Amino acid sequence: MDMKIEVIENVFKYNRINAESNRELFGKHHVLALNILSSPGAGKTSLIIETIKHLGKSVNIGVIEGDVSSTYDAQKIKKYINQVVQINTGGTCHLNATMVGRALEKLDTGNMDLIIIENVGNLICPVGFDLGEDYRIVLSSVNEGDDKPVKYPPVFIKCNPVLLNKMDLIGISDFDLGFFIKEVRKINPSAELLKFSCKTGEGVEKWIEWVLKQVKNKKGK
Amino acid sequence: MDMKIEVIENVFKYNRINAESNRELFGKHHVLALNILSSPGAGKTSLIIETIKHLGKSVNIGVIEGDVSSTYDAQKIKKYINQVVQINTGGTCHLNATMVGRALEKLDTGNMDLIIIENVGNLICPVGFDLGEDYRIVLSSVNEGDDKPVKYPPVFIKCNPVLLNKMDLIGISDFDLGFFIKEVRKINPSAELLKFSCKTGEGVEKWIEWVLKQVKNKKGK
Repeated sequence: MDMKIEVIENVFKYNRINAESNRELFGKHHVLALNILSSPGAGKTSLIIETIKHLGKSVNIGVIEGDVSSTYDAQKIKKYINQVVQINTGGTCHLNATMVGRALEKLDTGNMDLIIIENVGNLICPVGFDLGEDYRIVLSSVNEGDDKPVKYPPVFIKCNPVLLNKMDLIGISDFDLGFFIKEVRKINPSAELLKFSCKTGEGVEKWIEWVLKQVKNKKGK
Repeated sequence: MDMKIEVIENVFKYNRINAESNRELFGKHHVLALNILSSPGAGKTSLIIETIKHLGKSVNIGVIEGDVSSTYDAQKIKKYINQVVQINTGGTCHLNATMVGRALEKLDTGNMDLIIIENVGNLICPVGFDLGEDYRIVLSSVNEGDDKPVKYPPVFIKCNPVLLNKMDLIGISDFDLGFFIKEVRKINPSAELLKFSCKTGEGVEKWIEWVLKQVKNKKGK
């Protein structure tokens, strides 16, 4: 039993050390780092593509794609920018700071303004692993249902902002927006909440504004 | 490093022992046990409710609900049947055989025909944990996208049947059904594939037929 606890402590200790080293790198180059968490299929890749479409001309963006398997998402993003690295975890259910550190070596981090890390699609495990990011962000989606903050509280407690995608489906689903917002507020009263649809583009400008503001803040530091 | 491997082996060893003991219990009472895996919000609870609505009068059904937090899903199911137990994992990302063994003590397993286990919403971690079930089943949904078998292969390799829910959304999404089926076939050629919409009820009868057939098979053993 002691042995088990020790091992788990070691895993978190190594992650902390590597997260700090990533954070130092981001700080040194004034690069904003965003770590995006969600269920499979909530729209992380679509959001990243929208961000590149809106900001790619004025902001130097790099992307780290985390997946259990395949280079499917990285290929999609490669159509828009060159600075993309795919991490295949080979079964592991979250990214850790060591994986991200290795990916950063393959990106031109010194010339970046923004690095977006797409975590493995999983609403539970990635929460516990600091990657050295500036913001840990959760992306929920209308079709997943309004009960996600009730059933998966840790990710909604630890993330800010909280994003809600696929708002175009709200008319044809029984998603209760008031209930969702109330439950998020209950466990994370200070979280910023942004709603949009990557499909129709509605509301995406609020996200773009938020990102641009944080990029400028980081550059100013 | 050796230490870590030993601990992980122990976790799996204890799980195997407890899974066998659950399997013996299911065998002794000729109860069919189904372990349903999916992403958060794919519709596991809705599928269980549909199953109870169709079969509840002729088949004695018990349900084990797995969630990180809350009794939200168990409460929904309690409206239809009494034999429901909620497991709150408190952060753990999957059910294990020990948790299920304890839940079985609270169900009238000796008088059951069918026990449905709703695993924690997670497309990765539950795959590795045998609960003693007869069938490990994956429920995918149209709104998650057609690339799930490519990006999360282990769950599609290890599960049979493969279910696809929210077929009512197929007209308004860019989900390519041919691609999804091709990718499932590629990694799991013998898997049965059932498509339906729990919302409209379309196709659900195929699932009900499948369940009823397995219940009868188990009773005949």
